Amino acid sequence: MRFLLSFFLLLPATVLAAESGDYPVQPIPFNEVTVSEGFWTPRLETNRKVTIPYDFRKCEETARIRNFEIAGGLKAGTFEGRRFNDSDVFKIVEGASYSLTIHPDPELDSFLDDLIAKFAAAQEDDGYLFTTRTINQDNPVDASKKRWGNLRRDHELYNVGHMYEAAVAHYLATGKRSFLDVAVKNADLIAETFGPGEKQLHGVPGHEEIEIGLVKLYRTTGEKKYLDLAKYFVDQRGNRPETELYGEYAQDHIPVTEQDTPVGHAVRAAYLYSGVADVAALTGDQDYIRALGRIWQNTVNKKLYITGGIGSTRSGERFGDDYELPNDTAYNETCAAIANMLWNHRMFMLHGEAKYMDVFEKTLYNGFLSGVSFGGDTFFYPNPLESDGVYKFNIGQSATRRPWFNTSCCPSNVVRFMPSIPGYAYAKKDKAVYVNLFINSSTEIAFEHGKVRIEQKSQYPWDGEITLSVTPENSREFTLMLRIPGWVADQVVPGNLYSFMGSSDERPSLSVNGKSISIVTENGYAVITRKWRKGDTVTLMLPMQPRRIIANDMVAADRGRVAIQRGPVVYCAEWPDNSGRVSNLILPDWATLSSEFRPDLLKGVTVVTAKVPVFVASDNGEEIVEKKQPFTAIPYYAWSHRGEGEMIVWLPRKAKAVKVIPAE
Amino acid sequence: MRFLLSFFLLLPATVLAAESGDYPVQPIPFNEVTVSEGFWTPRLETNRKVTIPYDFRKCEETARIRNFEIAGGLKAGTFEGRRFNDSDVFKIVEGASYSLTIHPDPELDSFLDDLIAKFAAAQEDDGYLFTTRTINQDNPVDASKKRWGNLRRDHELYNVGHMYEAAVAHYLATGKRSFLDVAVKNADLIAETFGPGEKQLHGVPGHEEIEIGLVKLYRTTGEKKYLDLAKYFVDQRGNRPETELYGEYAQDHIPVTEQDTPVGHAVRAAYLYSGVADVAALTGDQDYIRALGRIWQNTVNKKLYITGGIGSTRSGERFGDDYELPNDTAYNETCAAIANMLWNHRMFMLHGEAKYMDVFEKTLYNGFLSGVSFGGDTFFYPNPLESDGVYKFNIGQSATRRPWFNTSCCPSNVVRFMPSIPGYAYAKKDKAVYVNLFINSSTEIAFEHGKVRIEQKSQYPWDGEITLSVTPENSREFTLMLRIPGWVADQVVPGNLYSFMGSSDERPSLSVNGKSISIVTENGYAVITRKWRKGDTVTLMLPMQPRRIIANDMVAADRGRVAIQRGPVVYCAEWPDNSGRVSNLILPDWATLSSEFRPDLLKGVTVVTAKVPVFVASDNGEEIVEKKQPFTAIPYYAWSHRGEGEMIVWLPRKAKAVKVIPAE
Repeated sequence: MRFLLSFFLLLPATVLAAESGDYPVQPIPFNEVTVSEGFWTPRLETNRKVTIPYDFRKCEETARIRNFEIAGGLKAGTFEGRRFNDSDVFKIVEGASYSLTIHPDPELDSFLDDLIAKFAAAQEDDGYLFTTRTINQDNPVDASKKRWGNLRRDHELYNVGHMYEAAVAHYLATGKRSFLDVAVKNADLIAETFGPGEKQLHGVPGHEEIEIGLVKLYRTTGEKKYLDLAKYFVDQRGNRPETELYGEYAQDHIPVTEQDTPVGHAVRAAYLYSGVADVAALTGDQDYIRALGRIWQNTVNKKLYITGGIGSTRSGERFGDDYELPNDTAYNETCAAIANMLWNHRMFMLHGEAKYMDVFEKTLYNGFLSGVSFGGDTFFYPNPLESDGVYKFNIGQSATRRPWFNTSCCPSNVVRFMPSIPGYAYAKKDKAVYVNLFINSSTEIAFEHGKVRIEQKSQYPWDGEITLSVTPENSREFTLMLRIPGWVADQVVPGNLYSFMGSSDERPSLSVNGKSISIVTENGYAVITRKWRKGDTVTLMLPMQPRRIIANDMVAADRGRVAIQRGPVVYCAEWPDNSGRVSNLILPDWATLSSEFRPDLLKGVTVVTAKVPVFVASDNGEEIVEKKQPFTAIPYYAWSHRGEGEMIVWLPRKAKAVKVIPAE
Repeated sequence: MRFLLSFFLLLPATVLAAESGDYPVQPIPFNEVTVSEGFWTPRLETNRKVTIPYDFRKCEETARIRNFEIAGGLKAGTFEGRRFNDSDVFKIVEGASYSLTIHPDPELDSFLDDLIAKFAAAQEDDGYLFTTRTINQDNPVDASKKRWGNLRRDHELYNVGHMYEAAVAHYLATGKRSFLDVAVKNADLIAETFGPGEKQLHGVPGHEEIEIGLVKLYRTTGEKKYLDLAKYFVDQRGNRPETELYGEYAQDHIPVTEQDTPVGHAVRAAYLYSGVADVAALTGDQDYIRALGRIWQNTVNKKLYITGGIGSTRSGERFGDDYELPNDTAYNETCAAIANMLWNHRMFMLHGEAKYMDVFEKTLYNGFLSGVSFGGDTFFYPNPLESDGVYKFNIGQSATRRPWFNTSCCPSNVVRFMPSIPGYAYAKKDKAVYVNLFINSSTEIAFEHGKVRIEQKSQYPWDGEITLSVTPENSREFTLMLRIPGWVADQVVPGNLYSFMGSSDERPSLSVNGKSISIVTENGYAVITRKWRKGDTVTLMLPMQPRRIIANDMVAADRGRVAIQRGPVVYCAEWPDNSGRVSNLILPDWATLSSEFRPDLLKGVTVVTAKVPVFVASDNGEEIVEKKQPFTAIPYYAWSHRGEGEMIVWLPRKAKAVKVIPAE
C-alpha cells in the first residue's frame, strides 16, 4: 500500500512555512513524504480509517459536538461535559485535515464543512468562542460566567489555541477559508483583549497551547499581531505582579527566561516550551533559547523515562522531583509524550542537533506509541512502566486501554499527531538534507538549484539496514546528514540518566554505492558531502543486538534493576509470554539475550528471549522453589493487548528479598 | 493520677442534654466520669498537655488565627490557606473547652477569651462568619465572593457547624456566653436565610456538619428554630430539583429516607448520619431511623475495615464499592473514624443495642487511635492496613505520621474527640445502667430515687478482668447492662464481613459478690437485675487469647490472608520486630499464637508471637531460602513509631507466589 501525494500543487504557498517558518532547519512537511509499506503504515491507516471516525463518533455521543450546536442556537439544551471539551473536537478536525491532505475523501470533507458551520454558529458576534460560557452566560448562579474571569482555571485560551492549529490544518488541506475565518475572527478579539495596552488584560492562559496556535496563524496569514500576542503571553509568564501569578503548576512562577527546570503540569510545560521555541525562532531571542536549553538539560538528565515519557506524578499530572521516576505509578500522559516530541523537534529545528531527535525517536516508538491500541479505538491516558494487572492506573478505570475518558485529551491528541509523523523524517538547511527517522518512504526536496529525490528503504525498527537512493534533479554537491542514533553511540538518551551495560560488540557501518566509508559525525549526524548523481545509494547498517540498560543510581525505583532495548525500542516482560507472571523472575547479568522476529505475535514484533530464574511456590505454599524458565520480552508499546496482567520494564538483576503473594 | 471532677455543680442545667437530649438512652457525659490510671490516661494527658497547645500553635503559624484577625479588621493582610480553615480553630476550641471542663486552667481560659474576641471581631454585623469571604469580598476578581454562592464547594455552612459545637462546649465548660452569643447570632442569620419560605434559600451544605451543631445549639438554648433548620437541611438533601442536586459524593442524590448504602465522601456521610440520628431522636421520625438502619447494615456487611475504618478510596476520600477494601491504599481518614464513632454512638442511643458500641470500640482502639502518635504531635490523615515503607500514603508527605497538613481536619478532630472518650463508657435508661467501655474509672449516676456510684477497675484491653463495685445511695432494684463485646460471642464486627477462624476455647464468666452467675444477654448486654447494695461487686472475665480472623471471600484484598485480634485490639506485624521486613513471611494456620505483655515496648503493649516461615534471598540473589523465624505482632494503633518500613495487618496463610524485590 502506498500513500499518494495529492493536492500538493494546489496548496497555498504558506504550507511549508506554517509549521516551522524561520527555524534555521526546515522540516519536510508530512504531505511531501510518501510512506510505503512498513512499520508505520498499519498505524497510519488505522488512524485514518478507525480512529478519526471513532473519535468523531465519541464526540457526538458525549455532547462535545452538541455543545457547539447549543451555543450556536441550532439546538436547545444545556452544556454537558468539561469546559475544555471544545478542544477535543478541534484536535480531531486537525487530524482529519491532515488525513484529507494525503487522502482526498469527499465524505470527510463535507462532514468537516458541516462541523465548521457549527463552530461558526457557536461563535459569538465579536469572535468569542467557548461553548460552556456562551451556553451558560444567562445562568445567574454560575459564578464562572464572566469572560476571561478565571484564566487560571478556565481553558478558554487553551481551547482556541487548538482551534487555530485545526483551522490552519483545514485551510492548508482544503484551501477553504471557512474555519480559518472563524479562527482569525477569534484571534482578532483576543489580540484586542490581551496585550500591554492600558485598557487591555495582562493575564496569561492557565494552560498553554494558544502560543503554538497563534504562531501557526501568524505564519499562515502573515498577520504580525498574532506573533506579537504569542510573544506577549510568553513574556508575561511569571512576569506579572506576584499576587497574580499562578505558580509553578502553570510554569508561572518566574519569567521563562529565568526558568531552569521543567515544573508543574507536564503537558502545559512542554506546550509552553514549544511555543517559546516558535517565538524565539521568529524573534531570535537568545534568552529564551538559552532557557529552553537549561530546561531541556534538566529534563533529559533527571526527569525523563526510558520510554521518553515525562510527567512522573499522577497527582496534578506533573513533573516529579529530580530522579523521581516511579514505575508502577508513572503517569507519563500520552499527551505529554506528544508535547515532548513537539518540543524536541523544535529544539532540533533551532539547533540542528541529533540529540533532540534521539529523544523524539525514543518517545515515538515507546511512550507515545503505547498510548493507542493496534485497533485504534482504545487508549492509555497514563503510560506506566510496570503493572500488577490490578491497580487501575488508567484513570481509575482499568489496568488496560480504555475507549474514552471524561477528559479525553489523549485520544484526540493521538489522532492529530499520528498523520504528522512522516513530517519528522526529513529536514533541510542550506545545502544539507537531514534524515532523522528511518521510515520506508520517499520525498522530494526542493533546493535552490533543483530538486533532490530520496527513497528510503528499511524495515526499521526490526532491522538495522537502511538504504537511501539519492536522485538529484541535477548532479551537484550537497550534504546528506544521516542521524546516527545516540543508542548506537552508547547513549540511551542524551545525558547521564541511563547507560548501557558494557559496550556494544557491533558497530554501525556506512557505505556509498557499495563502498564502505568511515562514519564522521557532526552534531550526531554522519556527514556525507559529495557531488551526488542520479542512482547514488547510501547504506547504513545499525547494530541491532538487544542491550541491557541500567539507570543512574539516583533513580531509587530502578536500583538493582535492568531494562532491555533493541534499536530504539524499549522492551517489557508481560505475563502472557512468561507463564502468567513477571514479578517473580530475575534477569541475571549472565543470562544471554537473543532476539527473534515473530510475524504472528502482536502484529509482528521482534522479541527478546533468554533463560532466567523464576521463583514459584511449592504445592503446600510453604516453600519457594527456583527454576529456570524461558523468558520473552516484547516491545513496550505492544503490551496490554491480551488482557490485564503483570508487566514490567525494569527487571531485578538479583533478588534481595521477596514479597509473598498469598494463595487465595 | 486522677482526673478530678470539677465545675460540675456550676454547670448550666442543659449540660446533660446538650449532647444527647431526647435519645431513648442517655449517656453519662465525660465530665461526670473520672478516669483513673490505665490505658487511656497517658492519651488524655498528652492530648491536654501537648496536642491542644500544639494545635493552637500550628493555627497561629499557618495564619488560621490571623485570618480571623484580618477579617475582624484587627490586622491588615490577605486570607491565607484553605477556605475551611476556620473550622480547625473551632474544633480545637471545642477540645480545649472539654479540657477546661475537667481541668481548670486560667491561662487556657484567658487564651480562649482572647480567641473568641477575634471570632466576634471577624463576625460581620448581621452574624455572617466565614473569614475567606469576609476578607475577599472587596476583591472584584474573586468569583466566589458571593455569600451562599457555591454551597456545594464552599464550606461556609460546614465551618459554622463546628463553631456551634465549639461554642456549646465553651459555654458548658465556663458558663460564659461570649462564644455562644457569636454562634447564636450566626445561627439566627442562617435560620433566616435558609428554609422553606419563598424568599429563603433552599440549598443544603456541600459538606455536612451544621446539622449536628444546630441540634446542639437547640439543646443548649431551647430555640426550636435551630432544630427545625437541622431538620430542613436533612429533609432537603436529595430532595430538590434534580439539576440542583450535588450527587452521591455529597449524599445528595436521593432523599435520605430512601438511601440504603453509604456513598461519597466518608466524613460527610457519617456526619450526615449523625445529624439525621439527632434529628430523628428529637422528632421521632421513623423513616429516618429505618434509613439509618439500612445504611448501617450495608456499612458493617460490606464497607467496614477490620480496624473500624471507613472510606476506603483515596480519590475523593470516599466509600468504595461493596467489598472494595484495599489494604495498602486504604484511605480510612482519621476524621472518618471519628465520624463513624459519633454515628455508632447515636445508633446505640437510639436502639440500646451493644452491636453499635462494638463498632465504636473497634474503631476506638484501632482505626482512630492509630491517627495520633504517642507524643501527641504527629498524625495520620489516612490509616492504611499495609505499608511498604516507601509509598507516601500520608497525603503524599511520608509513610509515617506528620506534624500537620494543609487540610488539617484530622489533627483538630483528634484534639476534640480525645477528651470526650470517657463520655462513651456509661449510659442509662429508665432503671438500667449501661457499661459500654472498659475503662478504669468511676461515675455517679443520678436516678429518680437516688444516685448510684460505679467504680470500674480493669487493665483492659491488655487484661480481660473487669471489676465493678456498685454503690447505690439507697439499696434498690435496678439493672446493670454490661456489654459483652461481640468478639467474645465470635463476632468480629456485626455482620458477616469478617469471622474468627475456629471458635474460642475460652468463655467469658461473670460473678456477683464472688458468686458465679450465668450470662444472660439482651441486645448484647449481660443483664443483671437485682436489689443492689453498697459494696456489691461484679466481676466479668473476658477471654483474651489472640485469635485469627478471615475476611468474607468477596473482599479480594484479603483473600488467602489472616489477621490477628486480641480483645478489641487488631494486630499488625511491623518491620522492627521481624528482622526488618514483614512482606516476606507467611502465618500458616498451624503456627501457634501466644501473647505476652511487654511494658518496655511502645509504652507498654501486649504482643502476639509465633514461629513462622520467612523467605529470604541467598547471598548471590538467585535462590530463595525458607527459614523459621520468631514472629511478633503489635497492636495496629502502635505502629509507625520507629521509622518508616513495612507493616501488614492481613498476613498470607500460604504463599501462592512471590514478587522479587531487587538487590540494589
